[in-house]
Amino acid sequence: MTLTAISTYEALTEEAAIRLAATFLPEAGRLECREIGDGNLNYVFHVIDADSGKGVIIKQALPYAKVIGESWPLTLKRAAIEAAALQKHGEFVPALVPEVYSTDEQLAYTVMEDLSRLTIAREGLIQGKSYPNLSTHIGEYLAETLFHTSDFALHPFEKKRLAAEFSNPELCKITEDLVFTDPYFDHDTNDFEPALRQTVEAIWNNEALKLEAAKLKRSFLTEAEALLHGDLHTGSIFADDNETKVIDPEFAFYGPIGFDVGLFIANLIVQGITRSGEGRDIIIRHIENTWNVFETRFSELWESKGIEDFKDVPGYRQAVLEKIFSDTLGFAGCELIRRTIGLAHVKDLDGIEDDVQRIELKKQALQIGETLILKRNELTTIKDVIAFIEER
Amino acid sequence: MTLTAISTYEALTEEAAIRLAATFLPEAGRLECREIGDGNLNYVFHVIDADSGKGVIIKQALPYAKVIGESWPLTLKRAAIEAAALQKHGEFVPALVPEVYSTDEQLAYTVMEDLSRLTIAREGLIQGKSYPNLSTHIGEYLAETLFHTSDFALHPFEKKRLAAEFSNPELCKITEDLVFTDPYFDHDTNDFEPALRQTVEAIWNNEALKLEAAKLKRSFLTEAEALLHGDLHTGSIFADDNETKVIDPEFAFYGPIGFDVGLFIANLIVQGITRSGEGRDIIIRHIENTWNVFETRFSELWESKGIEDFKDVPGYRQAVLEKIFSDTLGFAGCELIRRTIGLAHVKDLDGIEDDVQRIELKKQALQIGETLILKRNELTTIKDVIAFIEER
Repeated sequence: MTLTAISTYEALTEEAAIRLAATFLPEAGRLECREIGDGNLNYVFHVIDADSGKGVIIKQALPYAKVIGESWPLTLKRAAIEAAALQKHGEFVPALVPEVYSTDEQLAYTVMEDLSRLTIAREGLIQGKSYPNLSTHIGEYLAETLFHTSDFALHPFEKKRLAAEFSNPELCKITEDLVFTDPYFDHDTNDFEPALRQTVEAIWNNEALKLEAAKLKRSFLTEAEALLHGDLHTGSIFADDNETKVIDPEFAFYGPIGFDVGLFIANLIVQGITRSGEGRDIIIRHIENTWNVFETRFSELWESKGIEDFKDVPGYRQAVLEKIFSDTLGFAGCELIRRTIGLAHVKDLDGIEDDVQRIELKKQALQIGETLILKRNELTTIKDVIAFIEER
Repeated sequence: MTLTAISTYEALTEEAAIRLAATFLPEAGRLECREIGDGNLNYVFHVIDADSGKGVIIKQALPYAKVIGESWPLTLKRAAIEAAALQKHGEFVPALVPEVYSTDEQLAYTVMEDLSRLTIAREGLIQGKSYPNLSTHIGEYLAETLFHTSDFALHPFEKKRLAAEFSNPELCKITEDLVFTDPYFDHDTNDFEPALRQTVEAIWNNEALKLEAAKLKRSFLTEAEALLHGDLHTGSIFADDNETKVIDPEFAFYGPIGFDVGLFIANLIVQGITRSGEGRDIIIRHIENTWNVFETRFSELWESKGIEDFKDVPGYRQAVLEKIFSDTLGFAGCELIRRTIGLAHVKDLDGIEDDVQRIELKKQALQIGETLILKRNELTTIKDVIAFIEER
């Protein structure tokens, strides 16, 4: 199966992308194509009818990770997983994911809705945008996709069928290494500025922190709670003032619910600390609202669609949400640390030109990350978390 | 696949079993066959050469559960899972499982080592046997099979491959229903004596207990820690004074480590409470020794074969073992309750002829079960557990 895929796979050219797109744009005149991928793992072709402005996106997986050249081969199966995850999540939140028009497993491409009317949320946030609906939409996305794919909503046969379908060992391994392991050791994938060395070495020597990171890694490795997006940072979200679309679920797999929630919140935190005044308050409110919308919607779904026999036992829903909240904080902490000193950074911090300010904010990100990991069972409400971030 | 299997499956006759066995007993003279299955889900043929005494066991899965007639169809895939689990676990503890000679997926049978020299441990224990090596062997079996199939020993690609191979939704559903759900509600699968009704109704109304049962069910549904046996009661163990062989892993799947440990310990507890004096002490020592051998061997394997980068972080092994211990107590509690009031009982209790004594011991089993579930985070050592059982 793998051999077949490799032997018949070839990278799409812009001409091939235009021919393919024409199938889905039957009334189009002159089609134009641009490769707009800024990720590390894929080609992304934007094909557009110059007359009508209508277009499609064609995303094709590369058989290796671009970030470190062709030396890191990567399964093409992730293209099928991404398309299947968009479709599965789309069953519950059609307004919040792009529509999938077609997918080809051998060529590892997916033709989907053109979202070029929107911008990547990370880029917009760095430019100071507010995205007033962002946290409400993502809170809904998280609750709907995670609840509906969990044992609380699915017959166990269907849940286990999906868990097997979305087995995604290669992409999970990237997270296991880059998020949960390498930043806590003097590993050559780490990437940090010399001015941070002392802080980073303190992390490598912080046995209490490493113990908690180990437990969080173990959760990620073993807890098949729901079909996660798996990489829900603000670079995986297209948005404008009204609309929000979650893209790129190629890391999708059955994992702990708090991982998706935590990654999104961590990426809001990293943006929040770069801001001041009202701009900062807007991000703080987004953090609070993400959790509140998630918790409210998850609870509504629990009541209206839950199939678990124990669902009405007093305290059970609350216990489940407490576990998700604690996981959320821990995973958010891991994301803050790895985005600061690991292989893959974020522009929110790296883009700050002033050296003193950039280093100071990176230290803040690391310190917030450490605290979220270590105190994830003491910070029991989102208000506690906000208060902790605000007092800094 | 299912259609093919059903259309070509047929139950073996004794004659067919003899013909099949002859392949593995080439020097045999006159072969004799007996169907000796006392389980609910399978035929078990014992074919033996009357002259040499050499024999084989042929176990064939039935396409339904015998316990409630033909109305409960059951996947034949469990035969392949059982054979594969015997072989996988046999890589680590060849002395503690039967050797598999051959397996046929379509006819759902496995030809394996004749263990008729041994007796089923439950039967022997009820007759008052001590099995001096039982807990040492089972402690080793648990540590070796569970450690070696966990993320602590396996590359994540191999672990996830095995988790998919051992996806076992139908058999897991039986456990999800009969162990974790039905006994906590007034469900028609429950089976208990009228004299227990008041005690049982107290369980149905014990919201604190049901909350903890719900959490344990959730662990069973979501935590893919290691390749479990999945049904490790004393009826799944052949033994004599020297030898121990674990059989019948048809419920094998990737689940929480404490489930296997807890089931075995619960079945020792249920035997222990039927005894007094030295006979009781022997069982108490088996309970203590099971955990101690498991913990010691697991720790040795952690040191010598662990591949987890965080394995040397102070406190991590201890934290993992504490989680396993707490799960063990909780799952043991669920087993005690379901074996007393659920669908499938144990002869240790049901076989007691004196009505007053039988009801009293069943109440004890229920009460120990409740306490183990509710206090699983307070009883932190096996000595605590022993003291609690002894003081009753």
